[in-house]
Amino acid sequence: MSEQNIFDNQEFFDYYRALRNNPMSANNVVEKPALFSLAPDLKGKTVLDLGCGYGEHCVGFLNLGAAKVVGIDISEKMLEVAKNENSAPGIEYLNISMTDISEITEKFDVVFSSLAVHYIEDFDKLVKDVCNILNDGGYFVFSQEHSLTTALTTEDYWTKDADDEILHYNLTTYTQEGERKVSWFVNGIVKYHRTFSTIINTLTGAGFKLEQMLEPVPSEDIMNQIPNYKRYIHKPDFLFVKVRK
Amino acid sequence: MSEQNIFDNQEFFDYYRALRNNPMSANNVVEKPALFSLAPDLKGKTVLDLGCGYGEHCVGFLNLGAAKVVGIDISEKMLEVAKNENSAPGIEYLNISMTDISEITEKFDVVFSSLAVHYIEDFDKLVKDVCNILNDGGYFVFSQEHSLTTALTTEDYWTKDADDEILHYNLTTYTQEGERKVSWFVNGIVKYHRTFSTIINTLTGAGFKLEQMLEPVPSEDIMNQIPNYKRYIHKPDFLFVKVRK
Repeated sequence: MSEQNIFDNQEFFDYYRALRNNPMSANNVVEKPALFSLAPDLKGKTVLDLGCGYGEHCVGFLNLGAAKVVGIDISEKMLEVAKNENSAPGIEYLNISMTDISEITEKFDVVFSSLAVHYIEDFDKLVKDVCNILNDGGYFVFSQEHSLTTALTTEDYWTKDADDEILHYNLTTYTQEGERKVSWFVNGIVKYHRTFSTIINTLTGAGFKLEQMLEPVPSEDIMNQIPNYKRYIHKPDFLFVKVRK
Repeated sequence: MSEQNIFDNQEFFDYYRALRNNPMSANNVVEKPALFSLAPDLKGKTVLDLGCGYGEHCVGFLNLGAAKVVGIDISEKMLEVAKNENSAPGIEYLNISMTDISEITEKFDVVFSSLAVHYIEDFDKLVKDVCNILNDGGYFVFSQEHSLTTALTTEDYWTKDADDEILHYNLTTYTQEGERKVSWFVNGIVKYHRTFSTIINTLTGAGFKLEQMLEPVPSEDIMNQIPNYKRYIHKPDFLFVKVRK
């Protein structure tokens, strides 16, 4: 089964591009720095980026000394941007779904994935596929929407007071895993909710050794600049995991 | 620094004893089965139980074949019950705080702790002390109040509708770790909130290998018998971790 290819939906694509181009987006001030903080030494290493999107991270991995970077994505539109804006000798972009990486015969030293695995229904298969495609001692570093985010089925995330100050995060159905249909720019985005322990147990069950996790929040300085980011006091947006084969 | 000895408070002690004696308490239908499901083979092993309370688990470890069980607790009142009701050749009860286990010179094969570590301020020290007291290849298996529970500073846990049905869990200040003063039977219970990632990183940072985690919920049958347990749909009460030295 293939994941949903929402990024080839023109309306979604346009909204998402505008979001990512905002230098103060959560992707730019929280997600990207945290992901790179978990990168092992990439000098001379081969890197695979699952769901590489615009290829920004691929360029980053190359700049950190990677010998070769392969970025794959299910969306042709995203790869078009990647090829136009983030091409370099040493980077190859392939239009392959994350669910089909068992078809790649090459092995890699490090597999990254940024904010993509929550679109994948069969996490167990993905983790085993990543384990198979890694050289011994290789690393898998990924971020995903936090389990406290993927749990929700409604857009009614926050309870606020009359002054629009957040009182609490409206957590629902955290222990019930599976498909979630949500609206994000467009209707009908399909994600998969997994609890913290399922994520951990799937990784250790496949033989990975857990090295580090992150649930980062913006700096106090940035929270003061962008009042909406005060939500991070109550709930992180992203979850990061670094495991080793 | 020693943890709070709330269990020697007579009022709290009496309330807690009544709770634990209820066969349908969350301790009995969720916590205890989950903890024992994570037990490694105990045949011929030496076991240390941190915060052993009434000693019920110590008897359980002995019944699973443990050669020797040492239960420690900061509360003399709890140990009095343990000695009266759960004594057996092979079990020793000691009035020692979990914060002082570095004073114990003996080593153990397995360290258990049931619902106690969230009362400990310095988790990093505790984890290192446990690692030191374990034989190589030994296991540390513990449960604690779930991070989604320890996060809260108020008793206003749930938002309900007019029919008393739960709408959501009111999650607050999850990303802000540290002391929480809460009311539970009595006022001023002091607990320490740590995020999921801090718990994991502290364990892996001390050299432990993470084997399994659990966030259990009651069976559907029990949820139907006890409507209040439908809250587990939204949030687990307990978090379990099994790591190996």
